[in-house]
Amino acid sequence: MTLNTIFDEIKFNAQGLVPVIAQESETGEVLMMAWMNKEAIEETLTTHRVCYYSRSRGKLWRKGESSGQIQTLVSLIIDCDGDTLLAKVKQEGVACHTGRRSCFYKQIDDDKIQINQEVEVAPESLYGENKDGK
Amino acid sequence: MTLNTIFDEIKFNAQGLVPVIAQESETGEVLMMAWMNKEAIEETLTTHRVCYYSRSRGKLWRKGESSGQIQTLVSLIIDCDGDTLLAKVKQEGVACHTGRRSCFYKQIDDDKIQINQEVEVAPESLYGENKDGK
Repeated sequence: MTLNTIFDEIKFNAQGLVPVIAQESETGEVLMMAWMNKEAIEETLTTHRVCYYSRSRGKLWRKGESSGQIQTLVSLIIDCDGDTLLAKVKQEGVACHTGRRSCFYKQIDDDKIQINQEVEVAPESLYGENKDGK
Repeated sequence: MTLNTIFDEIKFNAQGLVPVIAQESETGEVLMMAWMNKEAIEETLTTHRVCYYSRSRGKLWRKGESSGQIQTLVSLIIDCDGDTLLAKVKQEGVACHTGRRSCFYKQIDDDKIQINQEVEVAPESLYGENKDGK
Protein backbone atom coordinates (compact mmCIF):
# COMPACT_ATOMS: atom_id res chain seq x y z
CA MET A 1 0.00 0.00 0.00
CA THR A 2 1.40 3.40 -0.90
CA LEU A 3 0.15 5.97 1.57
CA ASN A 4 1.50 9.16 0.05
CA THR A 5 -1.99 10.14 -1.17
CA ILE A 6 -3.26 9.74 2.39
CA PHE A 7 -0.36 11.55 4.02
CA ASP A 8 -0.76 14.45 1.58
CA GLU A 9 -4.22 15.05 3.07
CA ILE A 10 -2.96 15.19 6.66
CA LYS A 11 -1.34 18.18 8.33
CA PHE A 12 1.11 16.80 10.86
CA ASN A 13 2.25 19.18 13.60
CA ALA A 14 5.85 20.27 14.21
CA GLN A 15 6.46 16.97 16.02
CA GLY A 16 5.12 14.97 13.05
CA LEU A 17 1.96 14.03 14.93
CA VAL A 18 -1.78 14.34 14.36
CA PRO A 19 -4.51 13.98 17.05
CA VAL A 20 -6.82 10.98 16.72
CA ILE A 21 -10.24 10.63 18.31
CA ALA A 22 -11.25 7.02 19.02
CA GLN A 23 -14.97 6.35 18.85
CA GLU A 24 -16.73 3.06 19.50
CA SER A 25 -18.23 2.26 16.11
CA GLU A 26 -21.45 0.67 17.30
CA THR A 27 -22.47 2.87 20.22
CA GLY A 28 -20.89 6.17 19.10
CA GLU A 29 -19.22 6.56 22.50
CA VAL A 30 -16.08 8.71 22.39
CA LEU A 31 -13.42 6.61 24.10
CA MET A 32 -10.19 8.63 24.08
CA MET A 33 -7.95 11.02 22.20
CA ALA A 34 -4.33 10.21 21.39
CA TRP A 35 -1.74 10.90 18.68
CA MET A 36 -0.37 9.15 15.61
CA ASN A 37 2.68 9.69 13.42
CA LYS A 38 3.03 8.36 9.86
CA GLU A 39 4.39 5.05 11.08
CA ALA A 40 1.47 4.55 13.48
CA ILE A 41 -1.04 5.37 10.74
CA GLU A 42 0.59 2.90 8.36
CA GLU A 43 0.64 0.14 10.98
CA THR A 44 -2.97 0.80 11.94
CA LEU A 45 -4.16 0.69 8.33
CA THR A 46 -2.14 -2.43 7.58
CA THR A 47 -2.95 -4.50 10.66
CA HIS A 48 -6.37 -3.03 11.59
CA ARG A 49 -5.11 -2.99 15.19
CA VAL A 50 -4.98 0.61 16.37
CA CYS A 51 -1.45 1.86 17.03
CA TYR A 52 -0.76 5.33 18.45
CA TYR A 53 2.42 7.25 19.12
CA SER A 54 3.05 7.77 22.82
CA ARG A 55 4.37 11.28 23.40
CA SER A 56 5.46 10.47 26.96
CA ARG A 57 7.35 7.33 25.98
CA GLY A 58 8.52 8.60 22.60
CA LYS A 59 7.61 5.44 20.69
CA LEU A 60 4.80 3.54 19.03
CA TRP A 61 2.02 2.51 21.40
CA ARG A 62 0.12 -0.53 20.26
CA LYS A 63 -3.08 0.02 22.23
CA GLY A 64 -3.68 -2.97 24.48
CA GLU A 65 -0.23 -4.51 24.07
CA SER A 66 0.21 -4.77 27.83
CA SER A 67 -3.42 -4.56 28.99
CA GLY A 68 -5.11 -6.72 26.35
CA GLN A 69 -7.66 -3.95 25.80
CA ILE A 70 -7.06 -3.70 22.07
CA GLN A 71 -8.87 -1.55 19.52
CA THR A 72 -9.77 -3.01 16.13
CA LEU A 73 -10.05 -0.43 13.37
CA VAL A 74 -13.38 -0.13 11.56
CA SER A 75 -12.63 3.07 9.64
CA LEU A 76 -10.24 6.00 9.71
CA ILE A 77 -11.53 9.41 8.67
CA ILE A 78 -9.69 12.69 8.04
CA ASP A 79 -11.36 16.01 8.85
CA CYS A 80 -12.00 18.93 6.50
CA ASP A 81 -8.72 20.69 7.09
CA GLY A 82 -6.65 17.56 7.62
CA ASP A 83 -5.49 18.27 11.15
CA THR A 84 -7.51 15.66 13.07
CA LEU A 85 -8.39 11.99 12.50
CA LEU A 86 -11.42 10.05 13.68
CA ALA A 87 -10.87 6.33 14.25
CA LYS A 88 -14.04 4.27 14.48
CA VAL A 89 -13.08 1.18 16.44
CA LYS A 90 -14.27 -1.89 18.25
CA GLN A 91 -12.89 -1.60 21.77
CA GLU A 92 -12.01 -4.79 23.63
CA GLY A 93 -12.93 -4.25 27.28
CA VAL A 94 -12.15 -0.74 28.49
CA ALA A 95 -10.28 2.10 26.79
CA CYS A 96 -9.13 3.99 29.88
CA HIS A 97 -6.12 3.08 32.01
CA THR A 98 -8.29 3.76 35.09
CA GLY A 99 -10.44 0.76 34.13
CA ARG A 100 -13.32 2.85 32.85
CA ARG A 101 -14.89 2.29 29.46
CA SER A 102 -14.05 5.81 28.21
CA CYS A 103 -11.39 8.31 29.26
CA PHE A 104 -14.04 11.05 29.42
CA TYR A 105 -15.55 10.67 32.89
CA LYS A 106 -14.88 13.96 34.72
CA GLN A 107 -18.05 15.87 33.98
CA ILE A 108 -18.12 19.55 34.84
CA ASP A 109 -21.12 20.37 37.02
CA ASP A 110 -21.12 24.10 37.80
CA ASP A 111 -17.75 24.66 39.45
CA LYS A 112 -17.25 21.03 40.50
CA ILE A 113 -16.26 17.74 38.85
CA GLN A 114 -18.66 14.78 38.92
CA ILE A 115 -17.36 11.30 38.04
CA ASN A 116 -19.89 9.98 35.53
CA GLN A 117 -18.55 6.46 34.93
CA GLU A 118 -17.82 3.50 37.17
CA VAL A 119 -14.56 1.56 37.13
CA GLU A 120 -15.36 -1.67 35.25
CA VAL A 121 -11.99 -3.39 35.51
CA ALA A 122 -9.46 -3.00 38.34
CA PRO A 123 -6.44 -1.16 36.87
CA GLU A 124 -4.11 -3.57 38.70
CA SER A 125 -5.55 -6.44 36.67
CA LEU A 126 -4.86 -4.57 33.42
CA TYR A 127 -1.20 -3.80 33.91
CA GLY A 128 1.81 -5.56 35.21
CA GLU A 129 4.86 -3.41 35.46
CA ASN A 130 4.14 -1.73 32.14
CA LYS A 131 1.61 1.05 32.21
CA ASP A 132 -0.39 1.31 29.01
CA GLY A 133 -0.83 5.05 29.42
CA LYS A 134 -0.27 7.84 26.97
CA MET B 1 -18.70 30.95 39.22
CA THR B 2 -15.14 30.28 40.30
CA LEU B 3 -13.49 27.97 37.84
CA ASN B 4 -10.16 27.39 39.55
CA THR B 5 -11.22 23.87 40.59
CA ILE B 6 -12.02 23.11 36.95
CA PHE B 7 -8.87 24.70 35.54
CA ASP B 8 -6.75 22.74 38.06
CA GLU B 9 -7.98 19.54 36.37
CA ILE B 10 -6.99 20.66 32.86
CA LYS B 11 -3.51 20.51 31.40
CA PHE B 12 -3.25 23.39 28.97
CA ASN B 13 -0.47 23.21 26.38
CA ALA B 14 2.37 25.70 26.02
CA GLN B 15 -0.01 28.02 24.14
CA GLY B 16 -2.57 27.83 26.97
CA LEU B 17 -4.92 25.70 24.87
CA VAL B 18 -6.66 22.34 25.23
CA PRO B 19 -8.24 20.30 22.39
CA VAL B 20 -12.01 19.91 22.49
CA ILE B 21 -14.02 17.22 20.70
CA ALA B 22 -17.57 18.31 19.82
CA GLN B 23 -20.09 15.47 19.76
CA GLU B 24 -23.79 15.74 18.91
CA SER B 25 -25.44 14.79 22.18
CA GLU B 26 -28.41 12.93 20.76
CA THR B 27 -26.91 10.98 17.86
CA GLY B 28 -23.34 10.55 19.16
CA GLU B 29 -21.94 11.87 15.89
CA VAL B 30 -18.47 13.41 16.25
CA LEU B 31 -18.76 16.83 14.62
CA MET B 32 -15.35 18.50 14.89
CA MET B 33 -12.27 19.10 16.98
CA ALA B 34 -11.10 22.57 17.95
CA TRP B 35 -9.32 24.32 20.82
CA MET B 36 -10.27 26.32 23.92
CA ASN B 37 -8.32 28.54 26.29
CA LYS B 38 -9.48 29.42 29.82
CA GLU B 39 -11.51 32.37 28.57
CA ALA B 40 -13.33 30.23 25.99
CA ILE B 41 -14.10 27.57 28.62
CA GLU B 42 -15.48 30.19 31.00
CA GLU B 43 -17.63 31.77 28.31
CA THR B 44 -18.92 28.37 27.16
CA LEU B 45 -19.85 27.30 30.70
CA THR B 46 -21.47 30.64 31.47
CA THR B 47 -23.49 31.14 28.28
CA HIS B 48 -23.98 27.49 27.19
CA ARG B 49 -23.09 28.66 23.67
CA VAL B 50 -19.90 26.91 22.62
CA CYS B 51 -16.94 29.26 22.20
CA TYR B 52 -13.54 28.07 20.94
CA TYR B 53 -10.21 29.79 20.51
CA SER B 54 -9.22 30.18 16.85
CA ARG B 55 -5.51 29.47 16.48
CA SER B 56 -5.42 30.91 12.96
CA ARG B 57 -7.16 34.16 13.94
CA GLY B 58 -5.66 34.36 17.43
CA LYS B 59 -8.93 35.19 19.17
CA LEU B 60 -12.12 33.76 20.61
CA TRP B 61 -14.31 32.02 18.06
CA ARG B 62 -17.97 31.97 18.99
CA LYS B 63 -19.06 29.03 16.86
CA GLY B 64 -21.78 30.15 14.49
CA GLU B 65 -21.29 33.88 15.05
CA SER B 66 -21.07 34.49 11.30
CA SER B 67 -22.73 31.35 9.94
CA GLY B 68 -25.61 30.98 12.42
CA GLN B 69 -24.62 27.32 12.91
CA ILE B 70 -24.30 27.59 16.68
CA GLN B 71 -23.58 24.85 19.19
CA THR B 72 -25.48 24.75 22.47
CA LEU B 73 -23.58 23.06 25.28
CA VAL B 74 -25.19 20.03 26.91
CA SER B 75 -22.19 18.90 28.98
CA LEU B 76 -18.44 19.41 29.13
CA ILE B 77 -16.29 16.47 30.22
CA ILE B 78 -12.56 16.30 31.04
CA ASP B 79 -10.58 13.15 30.25
CA CYS B 80 -8.57 11.00 32.65
CA ASP B 81 -5.32 12.89 32.31
CA GLY B 82 -6.86 16.29 31.79
CA ASP B 83 -5.43 17.02 28.35
CA THR B 84 -8.61 16.74 26.24
CA LEU B 85 -12.21 17.90 26.65
CA LEU B 86 -15.40 16.38 25.23
CA ALA B 87 -18.22 18.84 24.57
CA LYS B 88 -21.62 17.23 24.10
CA VAL B 89 -23.64 19.74 22.10
CA LYS B 90 -26.77 20.40 20.14
CA GLN B 91 -25.61 21.52 16.70
CA GLU B 92 -27.74 24.02 14.81
CA GLY B 93 -27.56 23.03 11.12
CA VAL B 94 -24.09 21.91 10.08
CA ALA B 95 -20.80 21.95 11.98
CA CYS B 96 -18.41 22.04 9.01
CA HIS B 97 -17.49 25.14 7.03
CA THR B 98 -17.89 23.03 3.85
CA GLY B 99 -21.61 22.75 4.60
CA ARG B 100 -21.42 19.15 5.79
CA ARG B 101 -22.92 18.02 9.05
CA SER B 102 -19.55 16.84 10.45
CA CYS B 103 -15.97 17.83 9.64
CA PHE B 104 -15.02 14.12 9.40
CA TYR B 105 -15.93 13.17 5.85
CA LYS B 106 -12.67 12.06 4.16
CA GLN B 107 -12.75 8.34 4.78
CA ILE B 108 -9.61 6.37 4.04
CA ASP B 109 -10.36 3.45 1.71
CA ASP B 110 -7.14 1.52 1.09
CA ASP B 111 -4.82 4.14 -0.37
CA LYS B 112 -7.59 6.50 -1.50
CA ILE B 113 -9.96 9.03 0.08
CA GLN B 114 -13.71 8.56 -0.22
CA ILE B 115 -16.04 11.45 0.62
CA ASN B 116 -18.63 9.92 2.94
CA GLN B 117 -20.95 12.89 3.51
CA GLU B 118 -22.98 15.14 1.26
CA VAL B 119 -22.93 18.93 1.40
CA GLU B 120 -26.19 19.89 3.13
CA VAL B 121 -25.87 23.67 3.00
CA ALA B 122 -24.04 25.71 0.35
CA PRO B 123 -20.98 27.26 2.03
CA GLU B 124 -21.69 30.57 0.26
CA SER B 125 -24.98 30.79 2.12
CA LEU B 126 -23.22 30.29 5.46
CA TYR B 127 -20.62 33.00 5.22
CA GLY B 128 -20.45 36.56 4.11
CA GLU B 129 -17.01 38.03 4.13
CA ASN B 130 -16.14 36.37 7.43
CA LYS B 131 -15.10 32.77 7.29
CA ASP B 132 -16.13 30.79 10.34
CA GLY B 133 -13.12 28.48 10.05
CA LYS B 134 -10.64 27.39 12.62
